[in-house]
Parts: sequence; structure tokens; C-alpha cells
Amino acid sequence: MTEVNQLNKSELEEQLEQLKKKYESYKEKELALDMSRGKPCPEQVDLSRPMLDLVTSEDLLKTDSGVDVRNYGGLDGLAEAKEFFAPILGVAPAEVIIGGNSSLTMMHDTIARAMLFGVVDSEKPWSKLEKVKFICPSPGYDRHFAICELFGIEMITVDLLEDGPDMDKVEELVKEDATIKGIWCVPKYSNPMGNTFSDEIVNRLAKMETKANDFRIFWDNAYAIHHLTLVHDKLKNIYDACVEAGNENRVFLFASTSKVTFPGAGVAAMAASPDNVTKIKSELSIQTIGPDKMNQLRHVRFFEKEGSLEEHMKKHAELIKPKFDKTIELFEKFLGGKGIATWLSPVGGYFISIDTLDGCAKEVVALAKEAGVTLTGAGATYPYGKDPYDSNIRIAPTFPSLDELEVAIEIFCLCVEIVSIEKKLAA
Amino acid sequence: MTEVNQLNKSELEEQLEQLKKKYESYKEKELALDMSRGKPCPEQVDLSRPMLDLVTSEDLLKTDSGVDVRNYGGLDGLAEAKEFFAPILGVAPAEVIIGGNSSLTMMHDTIARAMLFGVVDSEKPWSKLEKVKFICPSPGYDRHFAICELFGIEMITVDLLEDGPDMDKVEELVKEDATIKGIWCVPKYSNPMGNTFSDEIVNRLAKMETKANDFRIFWDNAYAIHHLTLVHDKLKNIYDACVEAGNENRVFLFASTSKVTFPGAGVAAMAASPDNVTKIKSELSIQTIGPDKMNQLRHVRFFEKEGSLEEHMKKHAELIKPKFDKTIELFEKFLGGKGIATWLSPVGGYFISIDTLDGCAKEVVALAKEAGVTLTGAGATYPYGKDPYDSNIRIAPTFPSLDELEVAIEIFCLCVEIVSIEKKLAA
Repeated sequence: MTEVNQLNKSELEEQLEQLKKKYESYKEKELALDMSRGKPCPEQVDLSRPMLDLVTSEDLLKTDSGVDVRNYGGLDGLAEAKEFFAPILGVAPAEVIIGGNSSLTMMHDTIARAMLFGVVDSEKPWSKLEKVKFICPSPGYDRHFAICELFGIEMITVDLLEDGPDMDKVEELVKEDATIKGIWCVPKYSNPMGNTFSDEIVNRLAKMETKANDFRIFWDNAYAIHHLTLVHDKLKNIYDACVEAGNENRVFLFASTSKVTFPGAGVAAMAASPDNVTKIKSELSIQTIGPDKMNQLRHVRFFEKEGSLEEHMKKHAELIKPKFDKTIELFEKFLGGKGIATWLSPVGGYFISIDTLDGCAKEVVALAKEAGVTLTGAGATYPYGKDPYDSNIRIAPTFPSLDELEVAIEIFCLCVEIVSIEKKLAA
Repeated sequence: MTEVNQLNKSELEEQLEQLKKKYESYKEKELALDMSRGKPCPEQVDLSRPMLDLVTSEDLLKTDSGVDVRNYGGLDGLAEAKEFFAPILGVAPAEVIIGGNSSLTMMHDTIARAMLFGVVDSEKPWSKLEKVKFICPSPGYDRHFAICELFGIEMITVDLLEDGPDMDKVEELVKEDATIKGIWCVPKYSNPMGNTFSDEIVNRLAKMETKANDFRIFWDNAYAIHHLTLVHDKLKNIYDACVEAGNENRVFLFASTSKVTFPGAGVAAMAASPDNVTKIKSELSIQTIGPDKMNQLRHVRFFEKEGSLEEHMKKHAELIKPKFDKTIELFEKFLGGKGIATWLSPVGGYFISIDTLDGCAKEVVALAKEAGVTLTGAGATYPYGKDPYDSNIRIAPTFPSLDELEVAIEIFCLCVEIVSIEKKLAA
């Protein structure tokens, strides 16, 4: 491949013309392909169908420990559900709080409670402070940023590098500024980069000096067990690191089965230190009598056989790894060696993050949309929807079929090429 | 029966001695009977077992309108779930928002949002105001009061009379005081009195002049369809009344299937005016991708046959009406004509409310507890747990078996008699 930089004007113009012809021919097909959200495909969700047969009219509607799931009770979830989530979150069962169907809701509610009542160690509710700021390693997860916007929390963008957030920057910020109350992290197979925080980064997050006594790490371990290959990324246990550093109240951990069983009908959980858990439960006891125990029981029964969760996740990987492979293969085929885009090849998670030349992402997404390919909005991976480089695009390859994906990625690459060349020509 | 007032000291002492003997003999039995919460009994929850067979691995996991319940989506619930709740709430389906498993959570979250963001017509978030007050018709539901306490909302107690709140008092208060932002109502088969608001009360609530522009009625219609007899209490439609009065934004309505299908694994819903719904949905979209659609589908399929909900509720009534009847029968037998307690005989709902002589309720509950009968804490039916008369006790007769209930009510009546006579003797 030739780098676009090495082509002269007439070569670029010639190439652009050919690319545009190809683009027009795709456009005529009136496609409608969606790669905008990290959604499991139908075959993935069907892996969990047998779970629906484990809590029927014929079944015992009690847990092994004797809890009647037909009636009220159980503020923080079934003991068995806590045991299920404890190793995923890397904590003891007593440090787990089971939620409803959404870890996003648990994160939102955790911040809502901090705003209204403060957290352990807060002098006052965060909403009573002049200003509250969060550090947002970016590219990151748009729904985290949306929560900050909703609550009027000012977001500070820090680069997410290959081994995690730019810690020099993070440490400098939190050491000086007491209004910085938190940081968002998707530490494993991150959304959207697909990378995993290194041990050193985890240690630095646990140990760093913070001006705010009530600083909190929001550890959204959404893809803790979502491996694509047999070689897994290993993530250091941040709760242990925080305990060791004498900062055990610093971290809130979150996970769910949304991308394990059924998105929207899964089970979510969070974990934290005993003091945090005590405070949260006392506030939670006013909000709910408890989450859906029947659905917890379905999950517990589905995964009660040793190793069944790992087997189940392997089946997910078998379905989606070919899609990740195909995407990377096409990136290499159409964009490789041209000096117009860079990407990582994640070994887990739900996304591939690609960086175009600066100032191209918005146009690429718009052009793809015109040809029937919906991508996550450019900028969505940055606070306030504003990518300072206008270069990051999140690809969610899991939902479309392999055939649809192939077409969608081809069109996408075409759009990257067209916009890049146009930029070069205009320069 | 002889009124206690008409007995002389030695007659009272003699009676007291006999009652205490009887009490001691009960105490020796070391019973453990719980009538503290409004919980359906095992036979009631088993009525809904067949629901668990309607969403299995063999079933189509799509709604009739084509929504895939296996995956993400549906912020405000399935169209079919909204259609189910619309007539229960007395609104159009478009005015319904489906929630998770708990209407209590929807109420809590509605107030949390009001505190954080205000409601339609608010000048600022309620948490930014010096003071926020709510009117709490009492006796009322302890969990409503707990929400106010959590958010630091000052509660003003107003008497709940037989046809609803003391509206003269309510109108006077809300007309003058802009810090009064809301009122809690359980308008039908109320918790704990079991009475239903009259049409006139509903009209006055809808029409009354409020100093606060953003005043809200929290209309917890928890027992909308929970009739005990064929003659139902009729509740006037407050949403229509508010619309007619030009106050369509005034009311938030809530309901759930917690006491229809499975408590803790049911479906909750709320309703409000289009403007309210638009604002709520925009805030909700940051908190969740949507509630559990599989459980909604279970419910929709279970009740899709015309009249099946009514039939189902009749089966509930068949199971619990004998318990209400037995309670009233024993009240009449042991307490009737003695001038020491008054009660209503509700034709729906989950509770019987009994008023002892002033200053007796706490002692009665404590004495019953000592004999193994757990009642809702005395005072719980009033804001801050403080019954100004110390007279109201909430009886929840649904959970125990008829035999257990009979013993529990006998012990309870015994305790009322003992405490009343002791009061008389000490006077």
C-alpha cells in the first residue's frame, strides 16, 4: 500500500474519483446497517434461552438457602447471586449489592445518591457544593458522560492511553483540585478502545493522593469476563489495591450479565467497602424492597455448574470473534499502510476503536450514514460529544451478521479513504 | 358487652387478672406470628405460577408488535404493557411509563428527580430551595413517609378522614405556603384505613389553588383493582379531574402488579401528563436503557385474555376475604361494645386499621410482640413514626394462614383489652 502522503495531487484526484464511484454504487443499494451500539446478536442472546426453563410453574420457587422468591424481601439480593458476582467483581460476597437489570442504573443512582446525600467521608452532599468535577479518560463510554451532564458534573478529559488513563495527568489533577470527586473507568477491554489497564495504572489509581477526601473511582467492569481469545487480558484487582493503600472506600465496582445472558433482562451488581455498602444499603432500603429475585434465581441456576459461565462465555466468543477478525482484516486490507487510520485489535469486549486523521471523524460518520451505515456518532466517545481531535470512531461489530458487517465495514473504509483524500486535497 | 367505662375499679381489676392469665398461657406457647407487612400469602402468589410458563426457551421471544424482548431497548416499556396499565391508572397508554419491579422505586425516583432537577413548572430543583414540605394524610403508608425523611422533606400531618384527607385543612395549607410541594395519597382501599376517597375529595384535590406552581399529587393507586367483594369502591379519575381543572401537570399516578402477580417480581408503572412524561423520559434515558421486557411480556401474555385480570383478582379475594372477615369478626367478638377501639371494615386493599384509646397503641404492639405476634410498629402510620394520638395500629391479615391469624388476632385483642384497662385503672 502507498501512504496517501506520498501521492501527488493528480494521483489523489484519480483515486478519489474511483472511490466515489464505488461509494455511489453502494449508496444505490439503499442499505440499512447499524453498528452504533454494543448489542449482542440474536445468536448470542439465544445462548441463554435454556435459562428461561429453570424457573417455571413446576419448579421449586425457593433458593437452596430457603428464600421464597415469590414474595417480597432481599434488599441486596440473594446470597447465591452475590456468590456468583463476587469473583467477577473481585470481592467477597458480603461486599456485593445485587441490583435490577442494569448496571448503568446502579451507576446513575450511585451518583444521584452522592449528589443528594454525599458518600462516606463527604462533608456535605455533592449537590450542595459550588462545583463537582469528574475525570473522564477518553475515548470513553458515552453513557457515563451523559450521567455527568445530567447532574451538572463538569468533565475533565484525560487521554486514555494503551495501558490506561494518562496517570501523570490524573495524579496532577486530583492532587490539586478538591472539586474533582471521581473518575470513570472501564478498566478491561475498555469501551471503546478494547484495551486493559496495566497493573501499574491500577496501583497508581489506588494509591494516588487526592485533595478530595471523598474521591471515588467508578470502576465499570462491564467486560470482566468477555474474552474473545483463550489468552485473556489480566486486570489487577483494584479493590485489593485500594485496601492495601489504605483507601478502601475509594472504589465503586460495577458489573452485569447484560452481555452474558439477556440485555435488558439480566442482573446487575455493584461492590464496595463495608462502610460504603452499609451507607448505600441504608439509602437503598428507602428506594426499594429489593430487586427481582426470580430473575436472580434463573441466573444462579443457569450458572450453578462449575465452569458453566466460562463455557457460556466461550460460546459468545465463538459467535463474535469472527466479526472482530473480519473487521480488523478489512481495516488492514483497505486502510492498512495508507497512513490515514490507526486501530487496536482487542482480545475482548464489544468494540473496536479507530482513529482517522484529525478532523475527519464527523465527516466519515456522516458519509457512512448517507450510504446506510449507522455508526456511533463521532465525538460520542468524548465528554460533551466533543472529540478535540475529531478522529475517534467507535465500531460495534457484534450485532450485524458477518455478511452485513463485511459490507458495512467496506463502506466505512471507503468513507475513511474518501474523507482523508479530500482533506489532503484541501490542505 | 359492657363498656369498660361503666365498670368500677374492682370489676376492672378482676377482669384484668383473668385477661393476664389468658395472656400468659398464650405466651407460653412461644408463637411467632407476623402481621407486620402487607404481604400476599403463599396461596396467593401461587395463583401466578402459570405466568412462568409463558416465556420459555420454546416461546417466541417477541411481542405481537415485533419487539425483540431478548435485547436492549424500550425506555418506557412495551406498548402492550402500557395498554395493560392504562385502564388501571385511568389514562391513555401514551401517558404511561413502565418501570422495573417496584412502584415504590418509581415514587422514590420521581422525588429524587424533583430534588435534583425540579419538575415541569419548577423554577429550580427542589434541593436548591430552603425548605420543601409535603402533606401527609395520616394514618398513611410508612414507606411514603420514609422517602420524605430521606430527602429532608418536612412532613405536615393532616387527618385522613373516612372520605379522604381533611380537605379544609389541605386547601388552607397549600393556598398559603409555597414550600408545600406535594401530597401523598393512597386513594383507594387506602393503606392502612382501607377507605376510598370520595368524588368530592378528588375534585377538590384537582381544583384547589396552590401557592406552589409545581405542586404535585403523588397518587399511589396501589390497590386499584384489589377488591374483596363484588361491590367495589369507585374512585373518581383524578387525571381527568386535573385536566378539567386546567391542572393536568399536577398529578403523578403509580401502580404495580406486586400484589397481583409476584411481589418483587412484578411490573410497576406510573402515568402523568404529556409534559411530565416528556421530562421524565428525558431524565430516565440517562438512568436506564429500559426496564425488563421479558417480565413485561410474561405479564402481558398472562392477562391478554379479556377479563382474565378480573378473574385473577377474584381468586385473590377468595383467598384473603375470609381473613378480613375473621379479623373483623374477632374484633367484634372481643372488642365490640367495650368502647376501647374503633375500626373500619374495608372492601378492598391489604389492611385493617384499628384505633385504640389514645395513648395505648405503643403498649399494645409491645405486649403483642412479647407474646410472639409482630405488628407494624405503632406510630409507623404517621410521619416521623409519631402518632400524635398513639392510637393507630395497622393490621395486615393477608400473609398468615387463617388458623394463625385467628390466634394472632385473639392475642392482639387481648392486648388491647389489657392495656385499655390498665390505662383506665391508672387514670
